[in-house]
Amino acid sequence: RYGYFGQDKPEVVKLLLCNVSGCLTDGQVFLSAGGEEMVSVNTRDEAGIRMLQREGVEVVLFSSSDNPIPKALADRLSERTGCKLQLSVQHKQAEVEAMMEARKLVWKEVAYLGNDEPDVECLNLAGLSAVPLDAPVVALNAAKYACRSPAGKGAVREFAEHILLLKKKAKSKMDQDRIRRDMF
Amino acid sequence: RYGYFGQDKPEVVKLLLCNVSGCLTDGQVFLSAGGEEMVSVNTRDEAGIRMLQREGVEVVLFSSSDNPIPKALADRLSERTGCKLQLSVQHKQAEVEAMMEARKLVWKEVAYLGNDEPDVECLNLAGLSAVPLDAPVVALNAAKYACRSPAGKGAVREFAEHILLLKKKAKSKMDQDRIRRDMF
Amino acid sequence: RYGYFGQDKPEVVKLLLCNVSGCLTDGQVFLSAGGEEMVSVNTRDEAGIRMLQREGVEVVLFSSSDNPIPKALADRLSERTGCKLQLSVQHKQAEVEAMMEARKLVWKEVAYLGNDEPDVECLNLAGLSAVPLDAPVVALNAAKYACRSPAGKGAVREFAEHILLLKKKAKSKMDQDRIRRDMF
Amino acid sequence: RYGYFGQDKPEVVKLLLCNVSGCLTDGQVFLSAGGEEMVSVNTRDEAGIRMLQREGVEVVLFSSSDNPIPKALADRLSERTGCKLQLSVQHKQAEVEAMMEARKLVWKEVAYLGNDEPDVECLNLAGLSAVPLDAPVVALNAAKYACRSPAGKGAVREFAEHILLLKKKAKSKMDQDRIRRDMF
Repeated sequence: RYGYFGQDKPEVVKLLLCNVSGCLTDGQVFLSAGGEEMVSVNTRDEAGIRMLQREGVEVVLFSSSDNPIPKALADRLSERTGCKLQLSVQHKQAEVEAMMEARKLVWKEVAYLGNDEPDVECLNLAGLSAVPLDAPVVALNAAKYACRSPAGKGAVREFAEHILLLKKKAKSKMDQDRIRRDMF
Repeated sequence: RYGYFGQDKPEVVKLLLCNVSGCLTDGQVFLSAGGEEMVSVNTRDEAGIRMLQREGVEVVLFSSSDNPIPKALADRLSERTGCKLQLSVQHKQAEVEAMMEARKLVWKEVAYLGNDEPDVECLNLAGLSAVPLDAPVVALNAAKYACRSPAGKGAVREFAEHILLLKKKAKSKMDQDRIRRDMF
Repeated sequence: RYGYFGQDKPEVVKLLLCNVSGCLTDGQVFLSAGGEEMVSVNTRDEAGIRMLQREGVEVVLFSSSDNPIPKALADRLSERTGCKLQLSVQHKQAEVEAMMEARKLVWKEVAYLGNDEPDVECLNLAGLSAVPLDAPVVALNAAKYACRSPAGKGAVREFAEHILLLKKKAKSKMDQDRIRRDMF
Repeated sequence: RYGYFGQDKPEVVKLLLCNVSGCLTDGQVFLSAGGEEMVSVNTRDEAGIRMLQREGVEVVLFSSSDNPIPKALADRLSERTGCKLQLSVQHKQAEVEAMMEARKLVWKEVAYLGNDEPDVECLNLAGLSAVPLDAPVVALNAAKYACRSPAGKGAVREFAEHILLLKKKAKSKMDQDRIRRDMF
């Protein structure tokens, strides 16, 4: 009856990984004859990212090599959200594991928001994982949580709230365990 | 039996406060590689603002410090709608109360259309308050009226009609009270 | 039993009037910090306009003075659709009646696709009238046909098909009447 | 009992033809006062095209003469997707048959994703054919498969998965037939 004895420390998410295309954006890329390229983000998703950052969860954005986004656009997204943006990721699992090692984290401390086939391993491995409402079945099957909000229109915010709710529950459970422990 | 004796003068809304991002717009911000930034507004929401203005209700737009919009874009929105636009508001309640004082208004005379956590106090305090269909739960719970229209696609118009309907009902009730009073 | 004796010639629609904002477009206006303004049209609505033009129905687009669109944008819409575009219309009924006089038409020969309060008289008067799925109630109540397609995403096409179907039915009824007449 | 004896070789789709406007895009064309023209594509549809290409299915995009897209925009779409883009096609069936002849293919080896009247013949003739969820009835009636995803938002991806699933089923059936054949 010494030390914490809940089912290991649960409020552990320290890092959220999130695709730009199909998670933070709805996957639409606007192309103009003049060569311009646009994507859109929703301010409530940006608010969700800020909520996590305020609670000490680092958020890193991924842009895959299949859906390259121009460097200038990546820089603007990075600046708006205050997130590091990993450009042109090819092997997501390897990339995430490198980031985990640099931060001394294990998979249980990682949350992952993905939306397609290249995300399947990470969705399976991450402590918490989710897909937007409109994700293809292959990703949906691997995710632990299916958002009711579609990509680019609230999925990031919803998953952020989900993560924070679990952190809060875990924290209150730890507090109760501590109280109970002190009672004996 | 002298003076108006309904439950105080009800057709009182003199001022509508409305967020730009997530109320007047759908929260989507279009970002281009070239550095351009776009938002969209719906002409039926603009028509709703004009309906209120014609009935003597002042409409003021808020842009929060969390979702800054470029000054040039704010100027264009202000010009199109004929509304004052308060840029980079940090503490909404304080801001609204300063505006109320300048106009000698009380909360009952204020209508508020909000969509997220920073709006909760104002949604609770305002005489009339609403959120768009797609607002996060935290804002929904504080609002007195939940629009069936989503943000940026009719929510402002719907709330405007709701305000004008209540004004009309209140006016006709006052007229009836006056008639009844005159009968005795 | 001489001359046509159905309930007057029914396949009469010669002119379709259609709002740009809220009918041909979804009412969204994209504003950029740089001063650019964009609207979007759907190619299936453009196809609907061409279907009517091929059957000899003239299509005229209206842009109201409340929702002004830049002259350059109006010219592009006019060119793409092959329609005359009446800019900054203030009094729709007067405008339509002037057009009817110039073309020697009566209201029964006019179809009208509208979406808001300023359209109510014309929706009531026109031989055929419709509103997009998402039109405000005030316009919906005045329309003879409510599209299942929303504004800017098929409403024009749907109304065009409706007009052409009625023309076809009317024509086949006239043919039958003629046959029956010839039989006696 | 020699040679393959299933109902002729079924995993035959070698070529997918797909409209740009109304299939790969949602049909929306964004027009600016400044003369710019934009369309949007979804990255999951682009992923669907890549899935087919990896399995040896050639994908060719069609832009019809009714909905011309600027050459520069067509080039960008072609580059992003790695597809040939046939500009301003007038008679689709003739065009497709010319392509089939050049590749020595028959209709059974062709898949076709269309969305409107000019696509009806090809939808009828192609071995596999589909329309997006929101296609007009005239095209829907001619298609062998109706996507649950709307145009520009997953229809291409869904049809790609459908094609690949049928190829896989056909292949496993051929394998079983071969095994059964070997057993006797």
